[in-house]
Amino acid sequence: MGAALLGAGGGGDPYVGKLVAMGAIKECGDVTLLDPSEVPDDALIVPIAMMGAPTILSEKGIGGEEYKTLHRMVSQFYGKEIYAFMPIEAGGVNSMLPIAASARLGIPMVDADGMGRAFPELQMVTFTIGGIKATPMALTDEKGNCAIFDTITNKWTEELARAVTMSCGGSVSVSLYCMDGATLKKYAVKNIVTRSEKLGAAIRTVKSGTGTPEANFLEATEGFKLFKGKISDVLRETKDGFNFGKVILEGIDSDRGKQATVTFQNENLIAEVDGQIIATTPDLICLVDSETFIPTTTDALKYGKRVIVIGLKCFEMWRTKAGLDLVGPRYFGCDIDYRPIELLAKGGSENV
Amino acid sequence: MGAALLGAGGGGDPYVGKLVAMGAIKECGDVTLLDPSEVPDDALIVPIAMMGAPTILSEKGIGGEEYKTLHRMVSQFYGKEIYAFMPIEAGGVNSMLPIAASARLGIPMVDADGMGRAFPELQMVTFTIGGIKATPMALTDEKGNCAIFDTITNKWTEELARAVTMSCGGSVSVSLYCMDGATLKKYAVKNIVTRSEKLGAAIRTVKSGTGTPEANFLEATEGFKLFKGKISDVLRETKDGFNFGKVILEGIDSDRGKQATVTFQNENLIAEVDGQIIATTPDLICLVDSETFIPTTTDALKYGKRVIVIGLKCFEMWRTKAGLDLVGPRYFGCDIDYRPIELLAKGGSENV
Repeated sequence: MGAALLGAGGGGDPYVGKLVAMGAIKECGDVTLLDPSEVPDDALIVPIAMMGAPTILSEKGIGGEEYKTLHRMVSQFYGKEIYAFMPIEAGGVNSMLPIAASARLGIPMVDADGMGRAFPELQMVTFTIGGIKATPMALTDEKGNCAIFDTITNKWTEELARAVTMSCGGSVSVSLYCMDGATLKKYAVKNIVTRSEKLGAAIRTVKSGTGTPEANFLEATEGFKLFKGKISDVLRETKDGFNFGKVILEGIDSDRGKQATVTFQNENLIAEVDGQIIATTPDLICLVDSETFIPTTTDALKYGKRVIVIGLKCFEMWRTKAGLDLVGPRYFGCDIDYRPIELLAKGGSENV
Repeated sequence: MGAALLGAGGGGDPYVGKLVAMGAIKECGDVTLLDPSEVPDDALIVPIAMMGAPTILSEKGIGGEEYKTLHRMVSQFYGKEIYAFMPIEAGGVNSMLPIAASARLGIPMVDADGMGRAFPELQMVTFTIGGIKATPMALTDEKGNCAIFDTITNKWTEELARAVTMSCGGSVSVSLYCMDGATLKKYAVKNIVTRSEKLGAAIRTVKSGTGTPEANFLEATEGFKLFKGKISDVLRETKDGFNFGKVILEGIDSDRGKQATVTFQNENLIAEVDGQIIATTPDLICLVDSETFIPTTTDALKYGKRVIVIGLKCFEMWRTKAGLDLVGPRYFGCDIDYRPIELLAKGGSENV
């Protein structure tokens, strides 16, 4: 649940992710979580993820053989044993699949990822900032079709793998940014799995703290409350393997009379209130249920649902020039400079 | 030129293919052509081809490094030396590229292919009838992007590789149906390179025989004359990596007053005269210039050009049930039974 919050609207339905992870653990046993400092510098570390539109995954499912296939493909390519798996991003599904993979292959999982949140395209990882190649990238679908890519840039990996993902029905299992332990320690977002655990626990116990549930939630998550509203419309399109769209919120309580919009490409990208931008990528824009504080993913947005829009600070590497070139507002077609959520929340918002 | 005739309208512009082959031979030296009987049973034989729409290739070109890349990918995958390259199909381009590849890598080329003509999709080879997998399939573009596919069926190879081909700009270089010498001898269309040479020589010397040029041409090619006409319209669409279309011919000389249409998907598929089918895939439907007898590919069809439509018998394996399932008229959406060209030419044509 905590990883779903960090998914910033993307990363898929945590219920689906949970089922896949729990099924694998029941069948194959527990998984050891390694702190990045426990990983030898020369160990081969392999991220595991699904690629595609999360809405498709809830119908198409995951077969169970995919991780063995990816393990075999990557081991053969490197001619070396895989030391551990790791997640590539947070989010309801992609935080959970590496647990399933680790359980099924009997190897540990590292407490780190490449985003500290979720992003829609596969070049959008801290490893790209570090100049690390996405390829060799292994891809397999639930039917048993496999591909290995070796591309000239990580953007080309995205192009080619996305095309195959679409042909395979819109969602596939992948391994990419395979790296050694030294690289992991230098560029990964560390301890994201334990942070997700803590955020999840905070959501579950939001009513047992000393303050109001809202105050407890904001304190535990270090979040900025951006808006409280009722969903009045959802515009949605599944195109090129992504969920594109926009959600419109009518303000309630202290935001009565105002209107907010949040645009998304799998993940929430830009939040506006009455035409003023109040948060942008790469900071996290999260919609949570106004009563339970359970995160709402972009594929679960529904008319009438009451939500609080929360802003969370992104991993510091995303705020560098290289980070913003990769995942800043301009990359997604929004012609404004990035301003940190903590400044915007102080009233320093700007006109569109 | 002979291979372009066997391309049955597809397989690309022989001028482009010739330039690539001649460039490689000038730079790297001659190529040894092996008879299939000279290949050891356990030798690794690797077909080389371009995949995509031939019209794109005449603009996008071939870089020259692609064959070294494919050679490296396939050798690494099998952990074995490649004994020889071979073509996968006839046609102006794909007959020539294995010559360029063999010259650049300094290995021989086998006098055989997998079609004895050209077909638009990559599962359409005699090797599919023999149950041989297209994968591992290696793919590279002129920029240096690479992929290896391993799929559950040859139709899935087509799906995934076609998607990547489109993403790479519509044409790429590929190796697939890698096989041992024993398999080659069992399923390949043998001596197609030398047959192409002979057909090419016959076209060049069509005016020096004993009969009329037309009679000389038909005798040398064992062709059936189906129609003589002037192109009055060409309908054309480049879609999903293919050249789709239809050419309409107004009859001239003995066919004056009649109208013929030939529909194509890269290759000519169905020929009709006044609504009666006179030839269908898998037999070869070839349009040649009415004066020079030089084959006209589907991407070079032009208003006003005078052509003779020629039918040639296909390789016998295509006339079996398995062959017709793969490449018969019904596969291409034409709801009729296949009838051999030699029967149709005897007046046994049927209504659409």
